Amino acid sequence: MALVVQKFGGTSVGNADRIREVADHVRRCRDRGDQVVLVISAMGKETDELLALATAVSQTQPGREMDMLITAGERKACALVCMALHDLGVPADSLTGSQAGFITDTNHSNAKILEIVPHRVRAALDAGRVPVVAGAQGVSTDDDVTFLGRGGSDTTAVALAHTLNADACELYTDVSGVFTTDPRVCTDARKLLTISFDELLEMTAVGCPKPAMRSVEVAQNYGVKLHIRSAFTWEQGTWVAKEEPSMEQPIIRSVTPDTSEAKITIAGVADRPGVAAILFRELADAGVNVDMIVQNASERGITDISFTVPEGDIDMAERITRTVAEDIGATGVTADRAIARISLVGAGMKSHPGVAATMFETLSKHGINIEMISTSPIRISCVIRQDHADTATQALHQAFDLAQ
Amino acid sequence: MALVVQKFGGTSVGNADRIREVADHVRRCRDRGDQVVLVISAMGKETDELLALATAVSQTQPGREMDMLITAGERKACALVCMALHDLGVPADSLTGSQAGFITDTNHSNAKILEIVPHRVRAALDAGRVPVVAGAQGVSTDDDVTFLGRGGSDTTAVALAHTLNADACELYTDVSGVFTTDPRVCTDARKLLTISFDELLEMTAVGCPKPAMRSVEVAQNYGVKLHIRSAFTWEQGTWVAKEEPSMEQPIIRSVTPDTSEAKITIAGVADRPGVAAILFRELADAGVNVDMIVQNASERGITDISFTVPEGDIDMAERITRTVAEDIGATGVTADRAIARISLVGAGMKSHPGVAATMFETLSKHGINIEMISTSPIRISCVIRQDHADTATQALHQAFDLAQ
Repeated sequence: MALVVQKFGGTSVGNADRIREVADHVRRCRDRGDQVVLVISAMGKETDELLALATAVSQTQPGREMDMLITAGERKACALVCMALHDLGVPADSLTGSQAGFITDTNHSNAKILEIVPHRVRAALDAGRVPVVAGAQGVSTDDDVTFLGRGGSDTTAVALAHTLNADACELYTDVSGVFTTDPRVCTDARKLLTISFDELLEMTAVGCPKPAMRSVEVAQNYGVKLHIRSAFTWEQGTWVAKEEPSMEQPIIRSVTPDTSEAKITIAGVADRPGVAAILFRELADAGVNVDMIVQNASERGITDISFTVPEGDIDMAERITRTVAEDIGATGVTADRAIARISLVGAGMKSHPGVAATMFETLSKHGINIEMISTSPIRISCVIRQDHADTATQALHQAFDLAQ
Repeated sequence: MALVVQKFGGTSVGNADRIREVADHVRRCRDRGDQVVLVISAMGKETDELLALATAVSQTQPGREMDMLITAGERKACALVCMALHDLGVPADSLTGSQAGFITDTNHSNAKILEIVPHRVRAALDAGRVPVVAGAQGVSTDDDVTFLGRGGSDTTAVALAHTLNADACELYTDVSGVFTTDPRVCTDARKLLTISFDELLEMTAVGCPKPAMRSVEVAQNYGVKLHIRSAFTWEQGTWVAKEEPSMEQPIIRSVTPDTSEAKITIAGVADRPGVAAILFRELADAGVNVDMIVQNASERGITDISFTVPEGDIDMAERITRTVAEDIGATGVTADRAIARISLVGAGMKSHPGVAATMFETLSKHGINIEMISTSPIRISCVIRQDHADTATQALHQAFDLAQ
């Protein structure tokens, strides 16, 4: 008998039919002898709708109240899933983040879990019932409702799986696993049966939409076995586990395109210590999530700095950068939304120095100019024009034989 | 400086504009020097939408899960009202039923308040902030989320006003007060400036839609000063207070029409002790809310029993009545949805025996047949054909000079 934490959200519970299908899946798992703990996030686009409502009502949107608002979505979905389980004769109890024992810090809208005290989850399991936990929420040390942030339900599921010492944590989505690239761009994209935490982390960091990066970090830290799979086909998905050094590693696991970032360049910056620090401290204080940062080699003591930010942050980032540019006497600031970042990820890359060269050659062969480059031990990312994104993805997927 | 509990819900907070208007009203009240505690119920038709979702998902609809689902509506509205207040520079904190200290029994979907421990409400007031309490909800003695039932936010407001020893409890609605009759039926319906608890209770019991009857009972029991008023025009509404025996009482305060009930008649019942008890015990056990019961005088040891139930309960009531009819050897059961109940309410009626006669004469003069009659010390209700409801209401409103 295995203990499995299963997480469902979004389109997986997007309407009444879907909720009943999820309930039926849980019933089948229990019939096979598994113990199931569910973590549920909001239905369909509900979180977006709640955010739109907040925008319509308020300009200040205080964090405490935003969290009270947003967490209502998870509670609704939780209660509905429980009802569907009851209909199938499966006893189930919905639990809010607070009832499930998620104690967090007081950092509203992006709270961190401090401790999980899952008495009521365990009590439900011991009574042969299915605990159905509202995702992405908890109660703060000030006794206020807190939200863990977008994608926080994945983190709820992983952290709970660790605390309960579960055999696996299954994250159900609308795709059937982790692919070698976006199947909408490359028809021959291939589902990976296994992937290492390091690889999946890099992929989620550069635009792979699921699962939420933070949940992968938590799973890696605590060694929680993750299974990314489909809530529509119910087929086996992708298992995420520790990298096994002995196994023959493919060089490249995936090509991950991402068109959700924008680029800012600040030109004519004096190349002396502390200048970059001023800029990126201002951006951090404003909550702008800076991703790639590239500073070109300096000539005559003058350099350019380029960095990428999520498209939604570009206006604020540009405003801040212009202010800083004046203060430090830079010569100009440009903002550019029409970029794409294409990344290659693979643990085998570490011992294969030729990967970067092949990537650059492939892009060059297709007439695609590279504007920024950044690398990690197991990833290479290039920023290119956005209208070249599909061509680049397809070319790289083929160049590295990922369809095989 | 007065302490006022103000309750808003439904259309009053039906969209972003309305929420901002409510916030602005609260700001004005505070600028005048009042301390304000808000009780908020769900936006617009949200509760109906949540119920429809539950119906789409589940047939069993377990009470614990229904309460988790439904209470999400109030939390959303609460958080949004707080945000709008923050925008106007009014510090405010949303509080769930649990956070506001509403301890209830475990009777899901219709929980009763056992105790209110409003530490956080008082702390917010002491800090010069507006506590914004989610209506119609609490936490049970089993630590589960509970819902007080439809209209429960009025009860939350009144009970909180009592506990805080507030100077008044204002129930804001989409009408500007309590009227002598339905203004949609009689154009000369007149708003009452004051009304007694007894009168308002009778009116809400026979179909006056607002406020919720239970809240009037609580207000009466604890002597909470109620003000029923408009969230759209903000004008003075109707004050509800203890009847003052010395004041010159108008005989009739209102004509209250109600077309939401249906009638069942069980015919040919043996007129012996215990027969009615069997029937109404079965109906009560099924949760059918029986209202008027009329048993005709018996001839030859055989009688007919008629009773009214909410239209939504008519199918279940008919089924149960047919089963009982067979058991007790009654000759037939008829169900009739096309009825209306017209009620006259007025504390002065007690000392004016001619009211019933005038009512019956007025109906007769308009060719309206009376099918059932029931009375209380301050109310007379007649069941008539539904298509006569408007005529009867207008005729009675005129006969008793209520437009003056």
